[in-house]
Amino acid sequence: MPYEFSEQGLAVQGAVHQFMREYVYPNEPLYYRQLQDAGPQGSPPVLDKLKSLALQRNLWNLFLPDLRPDQPGTRLSNVDYAPVSEMLGAVSFAAEVLNCAAPDTGNMEILHRYGSETIKRRWLTPMLQGEVRSAFSMTEPDVASSDATNIGLTIDREGDCYVLRGRKWFSSGALSERCKVLLVMGRSDPSAPRHRQHSMIVVPKDATGVSLGVDPSIFGYDEPGGHPEVIYSDVRVPIDHLLGAEGDGFAIAQARLGPGRIHHCMRSIGVAERALELMVVRALERKTFGTSLAHKGMIHDWIAESRIGIDMARQYVLHTAHLVDSVGAKGAATEIAGIKVAIPKMALQVIDRAIQVHGAAGVTQLFPLAHMYASMRTLRIADGPDEVHKVTIARHEILGHHPGFRL
Amino acid sequence: MPYEFSEQGLAVQGAVHQFMREYVYPNEPLYYRQLQDAGPQGSPPVLDKLKSLALQRNLWNLFLPDLRPDQPGTRLSNVDYAPVSEMLGAVSFAAEVLNCAAPDTGNMEILHRYGSETIKRRWLTPMLQGEVRSAFSMTEPDVASSDATNIGLTIDREGDCYVLRGRKWFSSGALSERCKVLLVMGRSDPSAPRHRQHSMIVVPKDATGVSLGVDPSIFGYDEPGGHPEVIYSDVRVPIDHLLGAEGDGFAIAQARLGPGRIHHCMRSIGVAERALELMVVRALERKTFGTSLAHKGMIHDWIAESRIGIDMARQYVLHTAHLVDSVGAKGAATEIAGIKVAIPKMALQVIDRAIQVHGAAGVTQLFPLAHMYASMRTLRIADGPDEVHKVTIARHEILGHHPGFRL
Amino acid sequence: MPYEFSEQGLAVQGAVHQFMREYVYPNEPLYYRQLQDAGPQGSPPVLDKLKSLALQRNLWNLFLPDLRPDQPGTRLSNVDYAPVSEMLGAVSFAAEVLNCAAPDTGNMEILHRYGSETIKRRWLTPMLQGEVRSAFSMTEPDVASSDATNIGLTIDREGDCYVLRGRKWFSSGALSERCKVLLVMGRSDPSAPRHRQHSMIVVPKDATGVSLGVDPSIFGYDEPGGHPEVIYSDVRVPIDHLLGAEGDGFAIAQARLGPGRIHHCMRSIGVAERALELMVVRALERKTFGTSLAHKGMIHDWIAESRIGIDMARQYVLHTAHLVDSVGAKGAATEIAGIKVAIPKMALQVIDRAIQVHGAAGVTQLFPLAHMYASMRTLRIADGPDEVHKVTIARHEILGHHPGFRL
Amino acid sequence: MPYEFSEQGLAVQGAVHQFMREYVYPNEPLYYRQLQDAGPQGSPPVLDKLKSLALQRNLWNLFLPDLRPDQPGTRLSNVDYAPVSEMLGAVSFAAEVLNCAAPDTGNMEILHRYGSETIKRRWLTPMLQGEVRSAFSMTEPDVASSDATNIGLTIDREGDCYVLRGRKWFSSGALSERCKVLLVMGRSDPSAPRHRQHSMIVVPKDATGVSLGVDPSIFGYDEPGGHPEVIYSDVRVPIDHLLGAEGDGFAIAQARLGPGRIHHCMRSIGVAERALELMVVRALERKTFGTSLAHKGMIHDWIAESRIGIDMARQYVLHTAHLVDSVGAKGAATEIAGIKVAIPKMALQVIDRAIQVHGAAGVTQLFPLAHMYASMRTLRIADGPDEVHKVTIARHEILGHHPGFRL
Repeated sequence: MPYEFSEQGLAVQGAVHQFMREYVYPNEPLYYRQLQDAGPQGSPPVLDKLKSLALQRNLWNLFLPDLRPDQPGTRLSNVDYAPVSEMLGAVSFAAEVLNCAAPDTGNMEILHRYGSETIKRRWLTPMLQGEVRSAFSMTEPDVASSDATNIGLTIDREGDCYVLRGRKWFSSGALSERCKVLLVMGRSDPSAPRHRQHSMIVVPKDATGVSLGVDPSIFGYDEPGGHPEVIYSDVRVPIDHLLGAEGDGFAIAQARLGPGRIHHCMRSIGVAERALELMVVRALERKTFGTSLAHKGMIHDWIAESRIGIDMARQYVLHTAHLVDSVGAKGAATEIAGIKVAIPKMALQVIDRAIQVHGAAGVTQLFPLAHMYASMRTLRIADGPDEVHKVTIARHEILGHHPGFRL
Repeated sequence: MPYEFSEQGLAVQGAVHQFMREYVYPNEPLYYRQLQDAGPQGSPPVLDKLKSLALQRNLWNLFLPDLRPDQPGTRLSNVDYAPVSEMLGAVSFAAEVLNCAAPDTGNMEILHRYGSETIKRRWLTPMLQGEVRSAFSMTEPDVASSDATNIGLTIDREGDCYVLRGRKWFSSGALSERCKVLLVMGRSDPSAPRHRQHSMIVVPKDATGVSLGVDPSIFGYDEPGGHPEVIYSDVRVPIDHLLGAEGDGFAIAQARLGPGRIHHCMRSIGVAERALELMVVRALERKTFGTSLAHKGMIHDWIAESRIGIDMARQYVLHTAHLVDSVGAKGAATEIAGIKVAIPKMALQVIDRAIQVHGAAGVTQLFPLAHMYASMRTLRIADGPDEVHKVTIARHEILGHHPGFRL
Repeated sequence: MPYEFSEQGLAVQGAVHQFMREYVYPNEPLYYRQLQDAGPQGSPPVLDKLKSLALQRNLWNLFLPDLRPDQPGTRLSNVDYAPVSEMLGAVSFAAEVLNCAAPDTGNMEILHRYGSETIKRRWLTPMLQGEVRSAFSMTEPDVASSDATNIGLTIDREGDCYVLRGRKWFSSGALSERCKVLLVMGRSDPSAPRHRQHSMIVVPKDATGVSLGVDPSIFGYDEPGGHPEVIYSDVRVPIDHLLGAEGDGFAIAQARLGPGRIHHCMRSIGVAERALELMVVRALERKTFGTSLAHKGMIHDWIAESRIGIDMARQYVLHTAHLVDSVGAKGAATEIAGIKVAIPKMALQVIDRAIQVHGAAGVTQLFPLAHMYASMRTLRIADGPDEVHKVTIARHEILGHHPGFRL
Repeated sequence: MPYEFSEQGLAVQGAVHQFMREYVYPNEPLYYRQLQDAGPQGSPPVLDKLKSLALQRNLWNLFLPDLRPDQPGTRLSNVDYAPVSEMLGAVSFAAEVLNCAAPDTGNMEILHRYGSETIKRRWLTPMLQGEVRSAFSMTEPDVASSDATNIGLTIDREGDCYVLRGRKWFSSGALSERCKVLLVMGRSDPSAPRHRQHSMIVVPKDATGVSLGVDPSIFGYDEPGGHPEVIYSDVRVPIDHLLGAEGDGFAIAQARLGPGRIHHCMRSIGVAERALELMVVRALERKTFGTSLAHKGMIHDWIAESRIGIDMARQYVLHTAHLVDSVGAKGAATEIAGIKVAIPKMALQVIDRAIQVHGAAGVTQLFPLAHMYASMRTLRIADGPDEVHKVTIARHEILGHHPGFRL
């Protein structure tokens, strides 16, 4: 099912490429220096400078597919946006510079589609302007959240409020001072059919009863914004903070995932490209026993396998993006599951080879590789472990041959 | 670099799909029964019946990209032809039914582009009509033929003839009674620059001095047409049998490879699809300890990994086909090398899983799986082993970062 | 759990090593030439010559652990016998030369332990003398035989006979003219508890009602003795042909497996060593682009990975052999399952690398590699597929942490 | 080459097992809590308590093979010590509790064998008593240290002193307050033959000119003692601080490696066992879609593959330990290289599977798995990357077939 880039898509891709070369890459060292002072709660000052540059150039909210003409966002198709996402993936903070960073991207889409006018005015507008960030409170400690029936946080109607009671964790970004709002998934009706038991609701981070717990480090890294636990102790929010209707939670969460996974996967390809670039550069510089590593057969093998892996993965994601554009996320369910499994696995292999070429320096902060590895490893678990997605694919394949089969 | 199928391409793909369902699949058992009587030198009668059906429907010589309007061939682009090639790959003899079987495809292209009028009249015309088959005599025993300087067969001008002296093997198809002509690569001028030392020439199989040696079996299989050794003992052919000019041999061989590899790879994807289909069907039928294999987690993993591998591979080959269509085989050199490495590896994994699901039956002639495995394993060696192609890719990548680097 | 070789063990190992160098290796080419004439039913004459040489030197029946002093067999422990088995594995017919070939080894053990005097006199004695060979009729077509409840052949008591009705396949060796006797597993009492439903019985190959069906080739190979289907149509045998008591079938089959798997695995290590040797020799001989393959980094990697894989595997099997010697096959159940999974997988990797180093020749009969691959691949299925054995191991591990867990 | 444990070895192994269960495991949570306060420079108080308990029980310096009777150390063979080392590997600080932690173990061996009386009195004695720790300054930033000729730090004789000038990094443990002494490798004579150019020397950490640079984190982790850069700016030490003679540096470094690698590998097996244990326990606890993970086929596969990998690896290391005991480290060179490659790779696979079973918690500090992964990943680089060791193995294999071959 082939496809083409649009004129507009090509123009935006070119502009982002130029912006990356001109502003983002040159400021990478400064960003990391400032980050050490800023800590996981703060924000390096250079980020705001770069954000205003991006906003001036209208390289902003590019991920948003369907905004009205008077709103920011360039209405790119998933296919057109994919190469943008890849470019942003090469630098850890680039997506934020263009206001295209997760989890805000998915959250903005949800607020846009399911939020009341109050919610949109109070939260979506400042998010679209890059003034406020958000978190997504879905996963719970102690249970396998890939099975929605394991969700324990409750959302109960009491008068003109909903009351939340429970705990979430891996609410990525919630630690940041800029994060002002949380989208929370909880159980609103345990007696409803399986996929109508949950609701999603908006909670201001400063609401009474919201508190932050432990912030787990990923491997040993404390990332900007963190992935903290968030405790909801009798948190009351007005009923117009509900997204969609009661029972819509599961459907909203699903809708969020399709494009989100394509973004994640394209960013991961950008990460892998960067790792390959570092690998080649290092191989050229590094001498051992009188010869450059770039002369060694094993290094050739690693470079070639990495190039093949990356190129193959990119085409797979572009194909999936085109499917989502043309038949929707539902019709692309197995491909979305497929890229979710295949791309992080490929990227981990590329990064691991790059680490090996870098020797001891590769596992340290002198190069971004070990951190890349930790992030990619997490993607094999986040939004459901590989194994859950493979069952989705296998089920589809089996039912294709035996429609009535129960598994 | 996205792309689209043409109207004509979609039409042909649809027609081939229908033809496969209507005529090829139903005749598979008959073909294999007849093949046992025919042996590697003969041809099952059903083949001719199917060929005439295909010719009637103009599903014929579809691989040929650039024939004149008055000739057979549908002038499909590589992208348009790719899905055809995949469909043909699912049944071992299907390509021959549509007169699209290797090595005839590549040989016809060469004769078309480099042959004298005599050669075209005598050999190309009956080949285009499916009356005559051919072999390609390139590889030599005892040396690594991926290094062209290892080639030992000599082509010497003597009067108005060229004289060939040497031995080739893996001249696939030469054992068949229908094979009447050989395209032979040899060294014509050892003092010329490295890539101008070789020439390619046409040799009638019944020329004096041509004899067949041992026919190696492939993993125990004696395939139709075989892969025999061919001995050239002072074989004399007229000078108009030379293809192109003296010294063009290497360039002609290279030109042959680009589209050929795309065909091979798409056929291999067809093979992998068939193996996956067999795997799923078997898993549904097979019961152990009271439950169908299709319920088992390991089987789900194998099915999902196979589906992901196949889908990813297909997009990679389509992308490469589009590159060849738009910038030519030279500009797609690393991608052509990449698919040559990646696709057989993927197909072998899928087939191996399918064998395991079939138990003991999987390694026998009761299913086509073990034979598929043998064929795919050979592709990791034919036209240069994986390792040679990976060095091509690595070199390209390294030179991209350090243009003057010598490796 | 360390261990030592005995004096006797070291002496036998040395004698076998010498015998292999002096008699077996030099006769390998002759054997294969004679095998072409003999076909799968016959026996190359050189085999009998070598057998009498081995018998003269008392290098005979070395596998038998517990024979009385007046019988042949050297009573080696499994540890002592393991290196013998490895040496025999390097040459396809060597085990038969020393009367140590499967399935006769396991069959002789069973006849020795469970056979009536009649059976021993008529069948065990000539088998111990290498005059008669046997087959083991266990696996059935169409069902997964790793689940014993799938067995369909029936053994019914009728008067003073047992009557067999059913079909087996993969009765390895049954095609050979020298094979005179079959050990058959069947269901004798479907109402008994699960593991008491089966019996094992001795059937002369020339008994009325015994006939041979299709002989499946393995990949494309027709091996000496074949693996034919055997049809049992109302075959009547005297009641003293039953091995053990009615219902003992499952226990007898299990008892057969422990040492048998150690033999198989050590032979497989011998195969892998041979493949590695061929790989190194070929790498030294083969030149490409002016340099020997033995200079290439990839080849170094393959050689090193193969050496590591082989050495690691050997220690694992020796450890398992020692466990069987010291605590019995039951106490070594997970290790026996472990080697069954690990060793063929390792050997396949080594052989596959060796094939790649050999180029096109590697997949043909010019080298034993493709045939080795086919044999090893079959071992991942024979006696239960890998997956069944892994469940055994996992169950043991899980129950170690949670004794009452049901899985 | 089989072997046995000695009486004494079995007794010590039993005592260590008991000590681990009784004292080490129960204090694990306390240790990690105290570590947060202590930081990478300090030492959790519980460590000293446990150390005195171990010293009382004479479970102390067990690694030392050849001390005199009046000195601590139990003179265990490498085979006897191996299971001790594995048990210690399961808990990150256990080796230190028994005064058997790297790099002190190797350093004590070197001081014992090559140190002057002054050196032994001042440094070895307090190290044997567990009062002082040490670091090994070998690796340099910016160069591939696996090639000794890359070493840049100079050791020059000036009067009655040696003067050191240069930089090292990955001087593991040097950050700890308890680390008082550094063993430093440097170049003392660039004109000598390749393997006589280096010397090794003892440097008090408080010597003038010694300063600590950046402490690289490993995958985000700052480990106790760190792996800091150490800068040597005109550091002067008395000539009796030289270990052995000038030019002995390379030989001393080599002597240090054999047993050190066995210790490392056995500890890694302990790590893998712990990861497998965590995996099984988690699989039993974790429920998804109404069923425990311990019921799932994929989990069975992971558990079984892990058990097989661990058991196989253990036998390989024990075999290598026995080789070192019986023929010395030189005669076991390829096996030592083999375990150095194979064991971390195996352990990484086991840990990675365990992470996946733990879901998001697996990559955080809630479980030791991500930290284990970082440590094991580093072992594929430390003491020379895998690739260097594989070349050692391949060279040995190739030279075995062609003694004069140059590679």
